[in-house]
Amino acid sequence: MGSVERIRNVAKRVAKWHRAGYQMIVVPSAMSGETNRLLALAKEVDGNPSPRELDMIASTGEQVSVGLLVIALQAEGVDAVSFCGWQVPIKTDTAYTKARITHIDDRRVRAELAQRKVVVITGFQGVTEDGHITTLGRGGSDTQAVAVAAALKADECLIYTDVDAVYTTDPRVEPDARPLGSVTFEEMLEMASLGSKILQIRSVEFAGKYKVPTRVLTSFSDPMIPIAEEAKSGTLITFEEDENVEQAIISGIAFSRDEAKLSVRGVPDRPGIAYAILGPVAKANIDVDMIIQNVGVGGTTDFSFTVHRNDMQRALDVLKNEVQPVIHAGEVTGDAKVAKVSAVGIGMRSHVGVAALMFETLSKEGINIQMISTSEIKISVVIEDKYMELAVRALHRAFELDKESA
Amino acid sequence: MGSVERIRNVAKRVAKWHRAGYQMIVVPSAMSGETNRLLALAKEVDGNPSPRELDMIASTGEQVSVGLLVIALQAEGVDAVSFCGWQVPIKTDTAYTKARITHIDDRRVRAELAQRKVVVITGFQGVTEDGHITTLGRGGSDTQAVAVAAALKADECLIYTDVDAVYTTDPRVEPDARPLGSVTFEEMLEMASLGSKILQIRSVEFAGKYKVPTRVLTSFSDPMIPIAEEAKSGTLITFEEDENVEQAIISGIAFSRDEAKLSVRGVPDRPGIAYAILGPVAKANIDVDMIIQNVGVGGTTDFSFTVHRNDMQRALDVLKNEVQPVIHAGEVTGDAKVAKVSAVGIGMRSHVGVAALMFETLSKEGINIQMISTSEIKISVVIEDKYMELAVRALHRAFELDKESA
Repeated sequence: MGSVERIRNVAKRVAKWHRAGYQMIVVPSAMSGETNRLLALAKEVDGNPSPRELDMIASTGEQVSVGLLVIALQAEGVDAVSFCGWQVPIKTDTAYTKARITHIDDRRVRAELAQRKVVVITGFQGVTEDGHITTLGRGGSDTQAVAVAAALKADECLIYTDVDAVYTTDPRVEPDARPLGSVTFEEMLEMASLGSKILQIRSVEFAGKYKVPTRVLTSFSDPMIPIAEEAKSGTLITFEEDENVEQAIISGIAFSRDEAKLSVRGVPDRPGIAYAILGPVAKANIDVDMIIQNVGVGGTTDFSFTVHRNDMQRALDVLKNEVQPVIHAGEVTGDAKVAKVSAVGIGMRSHVGVAALMFETLSKEGINIQMISTSEIKISVVIEDKYMELAVRALHRAFELDKESA
Repeated sequence: MGSVERIRNVAKRVAKWHRAGYQMIVVPSAMSGETNRLLALAKEVDGNPSPRELDMIASTGEQVSVGLLVIALQAEGVDAVSFCGWQVPIKTDTAYTKARITHIDDRRVRAELAQRKVVVITGFQGVTEDGHITTLGRGGSDTQAVAVAAALKADECLIYTDVDAVYTTDPRVEPDARPLGSVTFEEMLEMASLGSKILQIRSVEFAGKYKVPTRVLTSFSDPMIPIAEEAKSGTLITFEEDENVEQAIISGIAFSRDEAKLSVRGVPDRPGIAYAILGPVAKANIDVDMIIQNVGVGGTTDFSFTVHRNDMQRALDVLKNEVQPVIHAGEVTGDAKVAKVSAVGIGMRSHVGVAALMFETLSKEGINIQMISTSEIKISVVIEDKYMELAVRALHRAFELDKESA
């Protein structure tokens, strides 16, 4: 939620649904910039603040939002009540700053809904078994919304974002990108994990785990848009493949510039070497994405993997201090000038030739592929980051995503 | 607490006490201006916001403070943990925006203290039996500190403020005002209720009820001031009158400009009339301070009382709409150009002549007394507000408060 004006618009929209007879639970985010402001304040006090206290501080952004939204709803004549995570309660584990929801008690919320109240719940936060405040990490409000929808067995979870739908790719990169009326959960999961920033990956995982029909739609439409129209807008994430409908082979092209590649050269080629390299990296809590091991010469091998760009320096330090001396490896290098581009589609399962078309397309554009990774429904490549937009546009055209119902 | 720099100073001061072996519980206030910012935000959404939601919003200011202070303490190498009111828990009644503490559970705090941790608790807030967040109203952090000190049976409650002591009167009005090494609880209560803004009156009531030795001292001193010196600085609020010590007759001159006088003239002089006038005022939740009824002429009387200046218009409306038509009174008037000046002193109990000296002094300065009210240890007068400073200075001199140990 941005300004007070935005909050009033959210209230108008919720009031419209409420008056039409829907039971509504709303999970607003913090006001724009608020979470960043709070985290910056904490880091100003100390560069390495306690995660527990960070959560104590950061969770207040959403607490202000829920109070303001209830006040705005009451000004619309709608009976409403706000709850913090601990008041619901939304129970989480103790992983401060990136906690996971373990249980949601729905009794208090149901009691308020039964009284015809709109219930407004803080996003992004919960409470541990021992009564400590936790936050769910960035995008936690989306995750909270889906989790609450799952716990309350809601008919649908509407996620209002700053885009009006999930697109075949980012329209800022490819103007011919088209909005998708629906995507499968698996496709959305790949898109999210591949850097499409519409939904946080954990919210998609939650939607999938509990089969919550989740719709991504714009928060910028007129709040008084007719419900019949709004209910069909945006992109619905679905869970059952309709076998009668012809599936598109590829639904979208995802990409991410938040990548960095690390390489360890001249590694002795013996069993256990991958663990010797990645064990210390994992222990440092650095997520590793793609992993490649090439055969080298003279009994040695080259080992490469990718991490989030923000983690590159830490990963390099781990490799140089804890890995290199132990396994007697050669050179250790890091490269932040890489990007990942992926073709995603549920239809890929039953079609060969997707990889071939992808590699051919990139080859024609003179783009060198540094790493390749595949899953059932996606193919990802790591390339030099300056070619990222070119690759996205070329693949979008090659897979005919610009054409209606490809 | 003001800036990040101030927070670091608070942490240095607390760390010093902690290292000296003291078990420390800290109740910081919100950062400067934060509570006002939050309340203004709520009022921007709606002019008449729900008190429950106001508390939801306003309580976040202190929550940010406790997190920041713990981070600063940890940076000082001190083990510390923060708690919100609901985490302690500090139980209150359901009077949102001005809740009263009903019970403090000390187990969680004691467990942390036993582990040599500094415990940092939000001021200004608690939780109802049903798990709703409440705030204690303005100055609630002081009250919280005293209440926690009472619940934990602390040796002393130190209240760090922006003044270095309780003075015989406000030094901005009378440059010869002197700091008091100690005042009795009763005197402090009168000073607080009479507009001395050093401590919120409810924190003094709490200190008195639970006999918590409470010291008012400055937060602007060097945080590394030796403990032996700091522990004797400021003003100690005491609970036992030491009969061997010669009590000053008058300890201080208090004053308040936040006053307004309301008068109802031509009131039928019959039993029940005071209730007929003040009942509706009380029902409108307006606090009445001084009350005076003068004998009038022809079977009627004039009735006057004072309220907080902010409540004058509301009180006038109540009188005109609900009282005047019912009791057939004459003119109803309000006067916001009044001030209250009081002489306060435990020694007054055993000395006659205080009132006489007070009235004589004001008379010599040509100041007309509009209303008089007395208690065991104070005499208050209402005068035209333009004479307030003059009255304070004249009384301060007349009672020889400028002289050491009067």
